[in-house]
Amino acid sequence: MKALFLNCTLKKSPRVSNTRALIDKVAAIMEGLGVETEVLRVVDYDIAFGVSSDEGGGDQWPLVYEKIRAADIIVVATPIWFGVRSSLAQLVMERLDGSYADGDPKTGQYPLYGKVAGVIVTGNEDGAHAAAATTLFNLSHLGCVVPPNCDCYWVGDAGPGPSYIEAGGGQHMYTNKTARFLAHNVVYMAGLMRENPLPTNIRKLTEEARAESRDTCPVRHGEGA
Amino acid sequence: MKALFLNCTLKKSPRVSNTRALIDKVAAIMEGLGVETEVLRVVDYDIAFGVSSDEGGGDQWPLVYEKIRAADIIVVATPIWFGVRSSLAQLVMERLDGSYADGDPKTGQYPLYGKVAGVIVTGNEDGAHAAAATTLFNLSHLGCVVPPNCDCYWVGDAGPGPSYIEAGGGQHMYTNKTARFLAHNVVYMAGLMRENPLPTNIRKLTEEARAESRDTCPVRHGEGA
Amino acid sequence: MKALFLNCTLKKSPRVSNTRALIDKVAAIMEGLGVETEVLRVVDYDIAFGVSSDEGGGDQWPLVYEKIRAADIIVVATPIWFGVRSSLAQLVMERLDGSYADGDPKTGQYPLYGKVAGVIVTGNEDGAHAAAATTLFNLSHLGCVVPPNCDCYWVGDAGPGPSYIEAGGGQHMYTNKTARFLAHNVVYMAGLMRENPLPTNIRKLTEEARAESRDTCPVRHGEGA
Amino acid sequence: MKALFLNCTLKKSPRVSNTRALIDKVAAIMEGLGVETEVLRVVDYDIAFGVSSDEGGGDQWPLVYEKIRAADIIVVATPIWFGVRSSLAQLVMERLDGSYADGDPKTGQYPLYGKVAGVIVTGNEDGAHAAAATTLFNLSHLGCVVPPNCDCYWVGDAGPGPSYIEAGGGQHMYTNKTARFLAHNVVYMAGLMRENPLPTNIRKLTEEARAESRDTCPVRHGEGA
Repeated sequence: MKALFLNCTLKKSPRVSNTRALIDKVAAIMEGLGVETEVLRVVDYDIAFGVSSDEGGGDQWPLVYEKIRAADIIVVATPIWFGVRSSLAQLVMERLDGSYADGDPKTGQYPLYGKVAGVIVTGNEDGAHAAAATTLFNLSHLGCVVPPNCDCYWVGDAGPGPSYIEAGGGQHMYTNKTARFLAHNVVYMAGLMRENPLPTNIRKLTEEARAESRDTCPVRHGEGA
Repeated sequence: MKALFLNCTLKKSPRVSNTRALIDKVAAIMEGLGVETEVLRVVDYDIAFGVSSDEGGGDQWPLVYEKIRAADIIVVATPIWFGVRSSLAQLVMERLDGSYADGDPKTGQYPLYGKVAGVIVTGNEDGAHAAAATTLFNLSHLGCVVPPNCDCYWVGDAGPGPSYIEAGGGQHMYTNKTARFLAHNVVYMAGLMRENPLPTNIRKLTEEARAESRDTCPVRHGEGA
Repeated sequence: MKALFLNCTLKKSPRVSNTRALIDKVAAIMEGLGVETEVLRVVDYDIAFGVSSDEGGGDQWPLVYEKIRAADIIVVATPIWFGVRSSLAQLVMERLDGSYADGDPKTGQYPLYGKVAGVIVTGNEDGAHAAAATTLFNLSHLGCVVPPNCDCYWVGDAGPGPSYIEAGGGQHMYTNKTARFLAHNVVYMAGLMRENPLPTNIRKLTEEARAESRDTCPVRHGEGA
Repeated sequence: MKALFLNCTLKKSPRVSNTRALIDKVAAIMEGLGVETEVLRVVDYDIAFGVSSDEGGGDQWPLVYEKIRAADIIVVATPIWFGVRSSLAQLVMERLDGSYADGDPKTGQYPLYGKVAGVIVTGNEDGAHAAAATTLFNLSHLGCVVPPNCDCYWVGDAGPGPSYIEAGGGQHMYTNKTARFLAHNVVYMAGLMRENPLPTNIRKLTEEARAESRDTCPVRHGEGA
């Protein structure tokens, strides 16, 4: 099984990333559980803004997207800026919007259907819950399974201050505990989903829904409607 | 299998609840899949504010809590007020904070561990994503598994307007489609989790984490620290 | 000038409230600036769930609402539970929905128009930005002016831990600094708004908007539409 | 007086932007009130990821930042993607983090202190409240005054569907009404703030706070602490 960590730090390699430091901790636990891990720093790629799977003109999103499609476990790791996830984490989600168009011909399941999601958040003050909740919810929309306790975060107390590495966050009990919960639950669920793939037929259920629906006024406020 | 729907409308019975109307649609699909369903209107109970499992003095939370513990599937259904979930949905979460104290003696797993979560949201304007994301994330912290596409919502367009029933939301294609996705995914995952319970040993992993942690300054800003 | 602090703790008097401790700090600074302050603990009142200004049957919201209407400055103070504001803070907002119906006969301005808002948040881990952002935004919808740096919060670092009082939060630099920013900015703006009330004519602007609008399909998905 | 609209659409010029269409409506109302307006499409600039005011290497943020500093009114306009503001809106905020370092030598006030904020949001389904709340809160941290009813948004009903232009959103009553509220309130407040600048002395208040604070354990979990 493969786990892909998308590091959404704003800093290009080889600058030190606090988020990476926490990723390494979680990845090591997963490796111990027999999972192959890969860390990808999104900002090192030249990814276009947009919502399709290939925006052309040298867009490097297809390279990232391919790795996402090949993984069993996807962990989005983001720093907090202004109380929410980073612009690069948001960029990743926007580009994954294109995956809805790549559904399975038979079932309509999107490419991320049945993959398992996790999230890692670091910041020096506040916003971990918001960043994690938004990200896991988005991933569930895209098809991922969200296990219990699959978020691991570190933040300092109120206001700006030292970040994860400098503050010795590696010794913080709560973060170390949830790093383990995340790794164990995500790996277990990924094995389970591989053995027991979701049978949901998106196409068939959509047809059923169409039969009881009637959008009588699709262009609602137009002149000629 | 049993599914419990917690209707967090602000209106007491027998007032008409838009949220209930959408619950009924989802519950009927689940019944068709062989699941026993129950709908509980939270505001009809006399539930104390607090964060324990029994606040005493006639607190009726224990009645609700018992039903939650007996269910395989928990669907929190909430109207939107001011862009977020209702005070009653928040109250339910606050009271579930008490469940952390009721962990399994051996594994430490909380009472909701391995149950499957879903969410239903209705409103006349905006806020469904925020209400759903926060609620599913909270439920994942409490131990629930969050399947893909397990939220179903209806909102009208920008600004106040007619609600679900009056607006004919029952015929809205997107809502009818996601009602099916929610029901099918939640029911499948609940069966899977029953057959393959999460083995996570919260106690053991916590002990492991303790060994590498050192909270050198637990009372951080105190006079004598 | 009068400032009203709405303490949205879950704990009834006389239980010790961490949120109250931080309120007291901010209120003392405001008193020093010549403002009369009052602290109201919402949970001590018997307030009905609902969205009108009087739900009847002994509903004590009208007592709170009257104090809100008489104040120049409104500070909503809330603990964090599950990453967001408390059920009681949400309850206050829901009940203020009723104020939209009490607009000035001439201008249509809602009762809170031109009052000045602030927010105080305490928690032991994370969620202050989310709680403050949602609350200030809601208050701006209700008519309040939101000055710069009008939120003051204290949280500990990642995960559960000691709360504001026990952790010695009263000595936390960032919180003490923002307590002053909040008090000074809110008091200055309240004086300014009293001298220079917003001239916005909600009624007239609404009529203007109507002239360029055409909701051609108000009941959008109904059977007979 | 000058108003700057930051269009945070993902689409480069000259592609049609729904967000731009709503900006134009609000800008026209402001022009009618005697305000000079400028619209800047953020994605057309080559802006680096980061949190300083100049990331070097051809970074074009300084061009945008200069315009922001010269404006009296700043309106952030964003589409919704995955229930929240766009990656470009987030990028703008991250870069504005650098402005904290450019405080006035005497008062310490940040460059945006006393400017007036507004927000415009468009999307085809849901998330306007979340996008607006986060953005206005961030701008208040940076120093902006947030007037009442200074957000204007358009979204369609639940699920994907036609966007603002195609759906005839220009005729939507609620959006047209709030476009006026936004323009009138923001312009009035900008005039007021220009005549009556905030006197807050950030430096002095920070010193006062320092006197009552004692961060006894600044590096909290470090090895040698």
